[in-house]
Amino acid sequence: MSETPKVAIVGATGAVGEEMRLCLEERDFPLESLTLLASARSAGKKLSFRGEELTVKELTHDSFEGIDIALFSAGGGISLTFGPSAASAGCMVIDNSSAFRMDPEIPLVVPEINPEAVKNAPKNIIANPNCSTIIALMGLAPLHEAFGLRSIIASTYQAVSGSGAQGIVELEEQMKALAAGQPVELKVYPRQIAFNVIPQVDAFTDNGYTKEELKMLNEGRKILGLDELKVSCTCVRVPVFRSHSISITAQFEKPVDVEAAKAVYENRAGVKLMDDPSNGVFPVPLDTTGKDDCLVGRIRKNLVFSNALDLWVVGDQVRKGAALNAVQIAELL
Amino acid sequence: MSETPKVAIVGATGAVGEEMRLCLEERDFPLESLTLLASARSAGKKLSFRGEELTVKELTHDSFEGIDIALFSAGGGISLTFGPSAASAGCMVIDNSSAFRMDPEIPLVVPEINPEAVKNAPKNIIANPNCSTIIALMGLAPLHEAFGLRSIIASTYQAVSGSGAQGIVELEEQMKALAAGQPVELKVYPRQIAFNVIPQVDAFTDNGYTKEELKMLNEGRKILGLDELKVSCTCVRVPVFRSHSISITAQFEKPVDVEAAKAVYENRAGVKLMDDPSNGVFPVPLDTTGKDDCLVGRIRKNLVFSNALDLWVVGDQVRKGAALNAVQIAELL
Repeated sequence: MSETPKVAIVGATGAVGEEMRLCLEERDFPLESLTLLASARSAGKKLSFRGEELTVKELTHDSFEGIDIALFSAGGGISLTFGPSAASAGCMVIDNSSAFRMDPEIPLVVPEINPEAVKNAPKNIIANPNCSTIIALMGLAPLHEAFGLRSIIASTYQAVSGSGAQGIVELEEQMKALAAGQPVELKVYPRQIAFNVIPQVDAFTDNGYTKEELKMLNEGRKILGLDELKVSCTCVRVPVFRSHSISITAQFEKPVDVEAAKAVYENRAGVKLMDDPSNGVFPVPLDTTGKDDCLVGRIRKNLVFSNALDLWVVGDQVRKGAALNAVQIAELL
Repeated sequence: MSETPKVAIVGATGAVGEEMRLCLEERDFPLESLTLLASARSAGKKLSFRGEELTVKELTHDSFEGIDIALFSAGGGISLTFGPSAASAGCMVIDNSSAFRMDPEIPLVVPEINPEAVKNAPKNIIANPNCSTIIALMGLAPLHEAFGLRSIIASTYQAVSGSGAQGIVELEEQMKALAAGQPVELKVYPRQIAFNVIPQVDAFTDNGYTKEELKMLNEGRKILGLDELKVSCTCVRVPVFRSHSISITAQFEKPVDVEAAKAVYENRAGVKLMDDPSNGVFPVPLDTTGKDDCLVGRIRKNLVFSNALDLWVVGDQVRKGAALNAVQIAELL
């Protein structure tokens, strides 16, 4: 890989695509050129990058000639259609969709957890994990190193940004309609999201779990290399704009101790402890909005199981849950 | 007890007190008179009941002469100060605060679950359980009868009504401030609740759990008569006005089956199944707002433990979680 690669963002006008551009800029990512790609509808739009104005180009199968790294965040369909052709043109694809995550020949990477996995990408594609999975594992991986993770029970509080820019617009428009005494329109979510919570994220599968709920199981096993890891998850959309929160009960192989558990976050990259509840110190979604670090708090001994902790993990879904993690993967290359 | 008792509501101008008046009216509760009691600040206020206008009176130690049933919902301090004197004046106190719930001589009652407990109230006080506990147990009690409940892991999504009228005002005012580009004021909650979630309900205790989180353990054991029941809970405030939602993992003594679990809700009073997720059927907080019934959905086999189910229970916190349950206790008398 060239030290100053040519980079492209596919889905450059979406919520995650916009954040990818911001992350590349903020992190002084060394690159020779940045190409912004999107659907024909968005082509021609001007976006700034490092003081320059870039014109969004229409995504085609020829878009990837000469591109070294392509960050995809335009949905699974676009990834399936354009990812392999980009990869066979010699471009390294870092894909934010779920399209390739469970392919055994495609690494699934959280740079703070399994950076070495990027070295083995025979298809020239690396997958970015699901946002809730990244955020949960940022909290759990340090505990796993110390105590050996056995199972996870999680309930999520997921922001509307997880549905992209349209999710954010839906919440804003519903709030405006309610303030004006107008009826609420449903476009993105099956039920009103304003002043409500919805226990559905992604489609339902045959066993009653949603695809989103099964991702923490399947992707968690792959990222941590734990084939026996058990995970049961309830994913819920809440009227929050950007950051996801996750309430976790984690069972470990070894006996756990709350003080030792808190100590595992010292000097860790990408995750910080914020845990002094009797002094009002615990993380909330607004604490991580627009920030890189995931935050962990409310660590305590679970009252049902031995060797188990309850904890609360918060992270910016658009940033560490998506754009930042993808840019960090690019940095590893 | 007289067949048409004289009833008083203590805290008549609060969110739950207002709802108690509404429940007495809607349910044609047979009563000879209704006395509305509140602090000196609210005394003199006029409130309607069955077409009549009633004047709120100031609560004093003499308020309970001749009263048969007093529904208290004015906080634990008021209950501790005025409850015993009301009870010793011969009035049956039904108390919505946490002041008396764990007293072994005071029954703690959910009428659909342990109605027989009202018969043994030697102190003339009956306690109304915590709102999240009532709602969780409305979902769990039928499953307990069928499979034998062993443990509960719960994460809550609690409405601002749980903090009374002031919680509702706080969310409304923060929304208005944000819409106007003004700074948000914090009066009730430690952090902004608008477009945020807060993993703190009630005060923290030494083991890192909040009082609210321990209520589901202690009150659950007492209501179900299960001394060995294990419960671990994470209570979270969300920007929803009235209904609480609870994500539950419940482990049972006997093997469970999803279809058999769904069948336990047939012909149950106070709880209904709403569970056909692939057709978009699952309960959300707006479904139960202002309604009597709790709703259960998303029943599925937990993927971590044997004999365990995951489920999602929703109920109106002001109504079944407080006012309605208290009025139902009065009906048992």
